[in-house]
Amino acid sequence: MPFRAHLKVRFGDIDHAGIVYYPRFLHYFHVALEEFFSEVVGIEYHTVINEQRFGLPSVHLEIDFRRPLRFGDRIDVELRGLELGNTSVTWRYVVWKQDGSLAAEATIVTVGMDMDSYAKRELPPWLREKLAAYGASVAAPAAAPAS
Amino acid sequence: MPFRAHLKVRFGDIDHAGIVYYPRFLHYFHVALEEFFSEVVGIEYHTVINEQRFGLPSVHLEIDFRRPLRFGDRIDVELRGLELGNTSVTWRYVVWKQDGSLAAEATIVTVGMDMDSYAKRELPPWLREKLAAYGASVAAPAAAPAS
Amino acid sequence: MPFRAHLKVRFGDIDHAGIVYYPRFLHYFHVALEEFFSEVVGIEYHTVINEQRFGLPSVHLEIDFRRPLRFGDRIDVELRGLELGNTSVTWRYVVWKQDGSLAAEATIVTVGMDMDSYAKRELPPWLREKLAAYGASVAAPAAAPAS
Amino acid sequence: MPFRAHLKVRFGDIDHAGIVYYPRFLHYFHVALEEFFSEVVGIEYHTVINEQRFGLPSVHLEIDFRRPLRFGDRIDVELRGLELGNTSVTWRYVVWKQDGSLAAEATIVTVGMDMDSYAKRELPPWLREKLAAYGASVAAPAAAPAS
Repeated sequence: MPFRAHLKVRFGDIDHAGIVYYPRFLHYFHVALEEFFSEVVGIEYHTVINEQRFGLPSVHLEIDFRRPLRFGDRIDVELRGLELGNTSVTWRYVVWKQDGSLAAEATIVTVGMDMDSYAKRELPPWLREKLAAYGASVAAPAAAPAS
Repeated sequence: MPFRAHLKVRFGDIDHAGIVYYPRFLHYFHVALEEFFSEVVGIEYHTVINEQRFGLPSVHLEIDFRRPLRFGDRIDVELRGLELGNTSVTWRYVVWKQDGSLAAEATIVTVGMDMDSYAKRELPPWLREKLAAYGASVAAPAAAPAS
Repeated sequence: MPFRAHLKVRFGDIDHAGIVYYPRFLHYFHVALEEFFSEVVGIEYHTVINEQRFGLPSVHLEIDFRRPLRFGDRIDVELRGLELGNTSVTWRYVVWKQDGSLAAEATIVTVGMDMDSYAKRELPPWLREKLAAYGASVAAPAAAPAS
Repeated sequence: MPFRAHLKVRFGDIDHAGIVYYPRFLHYFHVALEEFFSEVVGIEYHTVINEQRFGLPSVHLEIDFRRPLRFGDRIDVELRGLELGNTSVTWRYVVWKQDGSLAAEATIVTVGMDMDSYAKRELPPWLREKLAAYGASVAAPAAAPAS
């Protein structure tokens, strides 16, 4: 079963058009990621950043907004279809409304970063293992140059 | 010359990793859109929504994050490469740092919406004209079915 | 037992100083208020606003910040010491950290508002009853002018 | 003439009640503070934090909300009535609407903090001088104990 974070749309998430302000979706995704680390990876994301000095900033994202969300909506943010590179993790988020309809789908590519040097860093083995156990696929490595 | 909104990265835009929290980029794009209506379209976006009862919610977006932004950075958000459909406007945003380097690039597809019924609505002619005058290209209509 | 909403400090709540950005405390209070309506008053706050056309905007607030909050902190936001006027509710919020220390204390005065006319409106009897049952005290009415 | 920061109420500042979400006022105050450092103190606030390792977190605040703000409102945030202690600065913010009416008034007490140790720190002389030149009054020191 893919992991789902259960969230509520809050009073302050709404914009002048009466629906969820679109940047809030990205906040929901990040909250879901934090819960995913806590419940699936088994380590708090703040511990990863603060103690392991490892972070996962976004380098690319795509979102399809299917249905607007309103104040009081209860949503599930599902994480699935993860893909692992040497330094990257690609996450797929699906936002479900309480009636089972789809509110949004997103793909977010994050890259491992050293929190001290801000340089790119390979995924630590413990994270790679946990994500593989969750069903993440491994991106094919670039072909080695023919010799 | 494409329109550029001049913004500053604020103290509260920063996240636990010490860089701009990625949803804030979407907020910057919306602020740039509001300024674009004010300065290029010649009508305030709140007037469009409140009096013309017309809005432009996002249905799809893609962002490439090129360089992180930090507190105190001055940025230019450029709008260019607009594309018009019957009911849609596609916007391209480029975020420039003060040193001329690229911080982010985004494509956001918005769809005309009636603010009372929340139904899809064709772009009003005055908006179509203004965006065409700004250089927006017109998307080829879908081929009519052969009779 | 006073009601407590259980919240987590999120990655995006942090500011450039590495602690929770102070406006987020007000957001936490509002989220706690929404939970209080749901669990104690027995009606969702969005239903109160949307169907009963009744809202409770803030007219005055005071906050003492006792200890900074950091990413990953789990907090309890307690509501107690409520006071009822004819049109007003005064709420007291206490923010507790997981170690039992105090992060913040606040008093927020809200006033009943008609959501259509934006005019001041008396507290509905059902709300007055629920808040009294929760232990809210009734503010002494202003003395009638001597005749 | 007291300093005024000129701001606009943005689409995303609005909440489900159709007016500015009350935590945004605190964000407006912080933005005004950043502009005040830039224009009056003559040093960017991010430089103060990053290079001088000095910050001014809030320890107490009071706000009176006089009139709601709506999307499209242009506001002036005025800073006046500053008061200096040994380690504290008290700021008074007044939010004016374009029609000259008052939207909000606030008093915020901030305390000098060392950004490395998070310990309390005296106001640096250059800041004390600049704020005094702006008209800040000096709080009477606590009486020395009689010997």
